[in-house]
Amino acid sequence: MRIGFVGLGVMGQAMALNLVRGGHAVTVYNRTAERAGPVLEAGAAWAESPAKAAEGADLTIIMVTDDRAVRAVAEGEDGVLAGAARGSLVVDMSTISPEATRALNEAAEGRGITWLDAPVTGGDIGAREATLTIMVGGSESAFAQARPVLELMGRKIVYIGDSGLGQTMKLVGNFVSGLTLMVAAEGVRLGQAAGLSLDLMGEVLPFSSAQSFELSKVLDRLGRQMFDPGFSVANRTKDMRLAVEMAEELNFGLALGAVGFQVWAGHQARYPSLDESSIVRHFD
Amino acid sequence: MRIGFVGLGVMGQAMALNLVRGGHAVTVYNRTAERAGPVLEAGAAWAESPAKAAEGADLTIIMVTDDRAVRAVAEGEDGVLAGAARGSLVVDMSTISPEATRALNEAAEGRGITWLDAPVTGGDIGAREATLTIMVGGSESAFAQARPVLELMGRKIVYIGDSGLGQTMKLVGNFVSGLTLMVAAEGVRLGQAAGLSLDLMGEVLPFSSAQSFELSKVLDRLGRQMFDPGFSVANRTKDMRLAVEMAEELNFGLALGAVGFQVWAGHQARYPSLDESSIVRHFD
Repeated sequence: MRIGFVGLGVMGQAMALNLVRGGHAVTVYNRTAERAGPVLEAGAAWAESPAKAAEGADLTIIMVTDDRAVRAVAEGEDGVLAGAARGSLVVDMSTISPEATRALNEAAEGRGITWLDAPVTGGDIGAREATLTIMVGGSESAFAQARPVLELMGRKIVYIGDSGLGQTMKLVGNFVSGLTLMVAAEGVRLGQAAGLSLDLMGEVLPFSSAQSFELSKVLDRLGRQMFDPGFSVANRTKDMRLAVEMAEELNFGLALGAVGFQVWAGHQARYPSLDESSIVRHFD
Repeated sequence: MRIGFVGLGVMGQAMALNLVRGGHAVTVYNRTAERAGPVLEAGAAWAESPAKAAEGADLTIIMVTDDRAVRAVAEGEDGVLAGAARGSLVVDMSTISPEATRALNEAAEGRGITWLDAPVTGGDIGAREATLTIMVGGSESAFAQARPVLELMGRKIVYIGDSGLGQTMKLVGNFVSGLTLMVAAEGVRLGQAAGLSLDLMGEVLPFSSAQSFELSKVLDRLGRQMFDPGFSVANRTKDMRLAVEMAEELNFGLALGAVGFQVWAGHQARYPSLDESSIVRHFD
């Protein structure tokens, strides 16, 4: 299959590499050209714009950071939607708002292009090892077409429903993980204040009902005092903001989410580019 | 070994049964005598008071609900400390405050008795299957003596440190699990409000960074609309209160814990005896 790929951050690089290794003809674009090095060496072609990456592709993947970045590469005369052929697919694997997704889906439809939202979870390790979980919204038949390509990047690939619902699932998952991480940080720092060693907490808590993916991350990161991203505070705060905005639109009254978002926003003002596990410092 | 056992609730019954099956001579006491049926049938003896259960025992286990209940069975002329022999061990496996534990430890020392705090996690299933995690505070040599008995009830048995620190570890674990549960409830209800089905959330979220023991419980309980305890809202709220009080004494500024405790306390006013997973109803 001819695949366009736009966005070669930590995640995108690893995902594009898996597509090239899977035997596909991949044409890549990235704002910073140097990032394309490893993928080009593996056999991908370079395009001078998002539109050129999408030209002649059966399927074009977008993997950038937020609503604005997706619009920047999708819209306009140099954008993916301008270059993509009628009848082709655009699969946006970025994490953006369900609303922006539905708007882009409509714009794509107007050009005879099918838009799928397919955000992922599993981080840089999942991207490298092709073990991502991928949540897909949009046309179910388009999903069936895209599935073999998605399987080269992920292990668990689930069709969620109409356009935007993949993003909704991602948002809810991030809402839960972002708060679970903060709970873990708050609990572990409280334990230290009360005289418990990090080692003993690491030996006991992951085997108790306190167990979570994020608790293990906090214990590990705090133990090593290693706060390079990973997943940055800025990205975590962006996702929390999207969830809080969604709750507001739905008239859903948040409890921990309301306070948690404020703490994330305050932490972002100080440490935007540290790994999210640095939220432990809020409790110093 | 001759073992006294005081407190035959859901947890205590299963734990005492495992001691009898392990070949020990167990003498039990419970405020409500009927609860002793299964353990007596299995071969345990009955005592008319906590003091009598402790008489002649090498080790006496207490497994009741809270500070007040432990003091009620430990202190006074009918209490465990009055009946227990000098040189014997008392192992309190209830979840109580570190402060109450240190006071009881002192009272025991005054009588030549060694007090260990050994709270557990793993719930009724862990108690039945002898897979509890047990966190022990107190004398390390007494811990070594008690260990073979604890191994009949638990799988992971960890010495934490001085008297009270087993309870501190338990409190911190419960603080994390009680908030992780609320985060999961809040997220899953938000997802439903945004149009996601419970089934799809169950298929995706436990395979994402949102994963936790408590998230799986919430998804399961909400799916079955089954809110019988399990672990009651009243017990959960009690444990959250102990953690919040501990934080205050330590001058540790809580974020999610402060709000979370208020929500638990409000929920307890309405549904004290439902399972803790009923916290989903807070978001109705």
